[in-house]
Amino acid sequence: MQFSQEDFEKAKDQLKLLKEDPGNEVKLTLYALYKQATEGPCNTKKPSMLDFVKKAKWDAWNSLGVLPQDSARQKYIELVSSLVSAESSVVKETPSGSKPGYETLQITIKDNITKITLNRPKKKNAISTKMYTEIMQALDEAAKDDSVITVLTGNGDYYCSGNDLNNAADVPEGGMDEMVQKRIQMIKNFVNRFIDFPKPLIAVVNGPAIGISVTILGLFDIVYATDRATFHTPFINLGLCPEGCSSYTFPKIMGLAKASEMLLFNKKLTAAEACSQGLVTEVFPNHTFQKEVWTRLKAYANLPRNSLSVSKQLVRNMEKEKLYEVNSQECECLRGRWQSDECMDALVKFFQKKSKL
Amino acid sequence: MQFSQEDFEKAKDQLKLLKEDPGNEVKLTLYALYKQATEGPCNTKKPSMLDFVKKAKWDAWNSLGVLPQDSARQKYIELVSSLVSAESSVVKETPSGSKPGYETLQITIKDNITKITLNRPKKKNAISTKMYTEIMQALDEAAKDDSVITVLTGNGDYYCSGNDLNNAADVPEGGMDEMVQKRIQMIKNFVNRFIDFPKPLIAVVNGPAIGISVTILGLFDIVYATDRATFHTPFINLGLCPEGCSSYTFPKIMGLAKASEMLLFNKKLTAAEACSQGLVTEVFPNHTFQKEVWTRLKAYANLPRNSLSVSKQLVRNMEKEKLYEVNSQECECLRGRWQSDECMDALVKFFQKKSKL
Amino acid sequence: MQFSQEDFEKAKDQLKLLKEDPGNEVKLTLYALYKQATEGPCNTKKPSMLDFVKKAKWDAWNSLGVLPQDSARQKYIELVSSLVSAESSVVKETPSGSKPGYETLQITIKDNITKITLNRPKKKNAISTKMYTEIMQALDEAAKDDSVITVLTGNGDYYCSGNDLNNAADVPEGGMDEMVQKRIQMIKNFVNRFIDFPKPLIAVVNGPAIGISVTILGLFDIVYATDRATFHTPFINLGLCPEGCSSYTFPKIMGLAKASEMLLFNKKLTAAEACSQGLVTEVFPNHTFQKEVWTRLKAYANLPRNSLSVSKQLVRNMEKEKLYEVNSQECECLRGRWQSDECMDALVKFFQKKSKL
Repeated sequence: MQFSQEDFEKAKDQLKLLKEDPGNEVKLTLYALYKQATEGPCNTKKPSMLDFVKKAKWDAWNSLGVLPQDSARQKYIELVSSLVSAESSVVKETPSGSKPGYETLQITIKDNITKITLNRPKKKNAISTKMYTEIMQALDEAAKDDSVITVLTGNGDYYCSGNDLNNAADVPEGGMDEMVQKRIQMIKNFVNRFIDFPKPLIAVVNGPAIGISVTILGLFDIVYATDRATFHTPFINLGLCPEGCSSYTFPKIMGLAKASEMLLFNKKLTAAEACSQGLVTEVFPNHTFQKEVWTRLKAYANLPRNSLSVSKQLVRNMEKEKLYEVNSQECECLRGRWQSDECMDALVKFFQKKSKL
Repeated sequence: MQFSQEDFEKAKDQLKLLKEDPGNEVKLTLYALYKQATEGPCNTKKPSMLDFVKKAKWDAWNSLGVLPQDSARQKYIELVSSLVSAESSVVKETPSGSKPGYETLQITIKDNITKITLNRPKKKNAISTKMYTEIMQALDEAAKDDSVITVLTGNGDYYCSGNDLNNAADVPEGGMDEMVQKRIQMIKNFVNRFIDFPKPLIAVVNGPAIGISVTILGLFDIVYATDRATFHTPFINLGLCPEGCSSYTFPKIMGLAKASEMLLFNKKLTAAEACSQGLVTEVFPNHTFQKEVWTRLKAYANLPRNSLSVSKQLVRNMEKEKLYEVNSQECECLRGRWQSDECMDALVKFFQKKSKL
Repeated sequence: MQFSQEDFEKAKDQLKLLKEDPGNEVKLTLYALYKQATEGPCNTKKPSMLDFVKKAKWDAWNSLGVLPQDSARQKYIELVSSLVSAESSVVKETPSGSKPGYETLQITIKDNITKITLNRPKKKNAISTKMYTEIMQALDEAAKDDSVITVLTGNGDYYCSGNDLNNAADVPEGGMDEMVQKRIQMIKNFVNRFIDFPKPLIAVVNGPAIGISVTILGLFDIVYATDRATFHTPFINLGLCPEGCSSYTFPKIMGLAKASEMLLFNKKLTAAEACSQGLVTEVFPNHTFQKEVWTRLKAYANLPRNSLSVSKQLVRNMEKEKLYEVNSQECECLRGRWQSDECMDALVKFFQKKSKL
């Protein structure tokens, strides 16, 4: 079967209409095929190891060797076509009663409770760029709706596996600097939403929690956890540093000697440990977890709403300025880390393990 | 038996000489009889539900229906007379060695220890307006006396059942606004006394503790508790908010996730829980509680007095300004709460349960 | 055997060459013999009890009674001679691999870890003036060397028995005021070194810890302890006050009610208690302590060094200004305490128990 230049242009346009991110590996393949189809074999200098994104793209293109431009065009069109048909065959089902307009979250409002469920169970609820944006939007809406309390939880086995590392490999037009700039701003806004949230905010930790989903727990009013949950913040392994105000809230909650073991030395806590150190309010056996927790939450949601909101803000306002400042300093620190060799090396290792880029 | 107008005037005067507050219900009855005696049946518009005090007075007056003015006058005189004779028959006994001049407290100074005992056991040591004033006076005196340490404890089964809700129903002349204004100022002064107290201050919690007697524990240097003690701060149920600097000290002591369960969601702690969360220094079995605690306290009271006082102030001065500010903000928040519908509704429910107003 | 005046002068010179401080008792005896040899029997007025140093010297001299000057000179010469020969017979062995130039510490750099070992086991690793100076120097060097983490531990049964009280009896030329001034400055500089240390700092608490070795633990990132360790800060007994920023870090770590028991009332914690209150990261059985801890530390030392250092500083910078201020205020308070009667009385009692001055 032969494809025309017109088919190729059409494929390019269809690609833009995809709703789901096809993932980093597919995107690199598409990039390589496109370059090969339009310019022929890879003809540019190999970029520095440190420019991770350019290097990954160059590797992908270069791996196509002397593949003829026609074949590249044909493979490109076929790949786009398979992506498009895969996507259209998925029946997008919004759970009954859940708020429309969200792709990565499921949101219900019932019994005076707004429940925000992280809903990428196959990805262990890793927070993609899309999910960051949607959580912020969901919190903005929950702040203003009629609910008395707001709950964050996860769908499936995990509560949340933290920042989706594929975010780091997104191919930005403005290059590395712009990506870092944008992501720092996003993380900062994201964390500020939790600092500012005006009603009682409750985490229902249904399974393992990792990274930023753990660090922001210090900003929740109540944290209930199943005994299956674990709490892990392995940023140092990735050459990074604490975020989510944890460099301030963790020492405050558990003392420096316990906090450093988590924040500096990657200690993974069991639910019982996290509870005894004050990060978690209470732990429940997994088989009664949902029942016990929701019985309580429904009772909480019947308490005087203004008293709750005013009292929560009374507590929070004591340290709001401090928390903004901490968030700012952490983000500045993170900016430096993302541009560091240690972080580059760690990311390259991570992706080399995952794929054959 | 017939009473003259002169008897009525005399009863009015006698009433002012009563030393013990006859309680809210009796005062409302007196008010109603007085109005009925002097103005006849209730002739004013029913006040708004929100003006709790006026409404209660109106209800009391209105409940007298068409009772003739003479009968009202007679009942008024009889009631005052019964109050006066009841009071004079009580032999006011000050326990041996206890400081004279206090009605609601028992104060002893011995072995370098000033011991302030809340002494309204029949009212579960609820803090009446009188007791607020006397505690402040007792602390002022203890700050200056020769003792090395100062102890606060309760007489009877309870440590303290918190703010006496009858205070909220006191019938003020200046109306609701003046009452709120006065009470806010009183609470603020009361809490500042604990912030400023210059010597080691020790709570000997002999039984259940409720409300403001719990929230100020974060300002004590040592808190010893019997295993019978419980710790409960149910302000949200009453439409209120945290006070006693607890919005700052509780998250500092136990972390936000544990503090919010107490301060926002009315969690009642056992003594063991309060100890494991750092609010209580140590828990003792009830049958050895007094013996063990006082053996320790006597030893403490033999330590170098200036070292103790200077060291306590060293710790306190680190955050004195912060504590003043917190107290101020909590009181401002409380002012808003006391004037809120949520609080009014909660108080009306509370008193309706207690009496047939 | 007869000694000439020349021998006496020579002995005086030899004394200055001694490397090890012969201790307070020997120094007082030397002082007394010298005075007796040169001026005859004690001929000055007994100093005030409060001038502790002068009083101790006067007592020593006076205790020689009418000992003839010649005999005093002879005893002086013999004593110096015995000190000199005792010292020269000690083979000064620096453990293999340990950094030269330190008398009271043993320092090794290996596997990315700088290990600073307090090395006065016979004195339970009490911190002499020399050791204060050497710890500061060792921290300055460790801050700049290539290691990833720095460890402080003790040689022998004790971790550290705190400030060497013999320091307080050093005979200064400028008198009491100058001594207090110098020591305050030294303590302040010492504690600031711990506030400023830029890399992860880990305490390996191999046995009992007392005084300032406990109070500065709140400035360490990780504290590992054997189950033989205890934690004791008995300054009030000595008429003193908290230092090492403990008046700030301890209430932050464990809450005021637990901190006051240690800081005001001399409570000695077991390792398990210290761990449950957050002062200690983890406790290990004594027989596996060294093995388990060093396995972990070696793993920690392989983590990205810049991430660790930057993250540690991120946490510390949040409260660096506060810690400086706390250190300053504690030192001011300590200055007052050292000059107080309570402290003098306590020191006199301490030395009277120890010797027959």
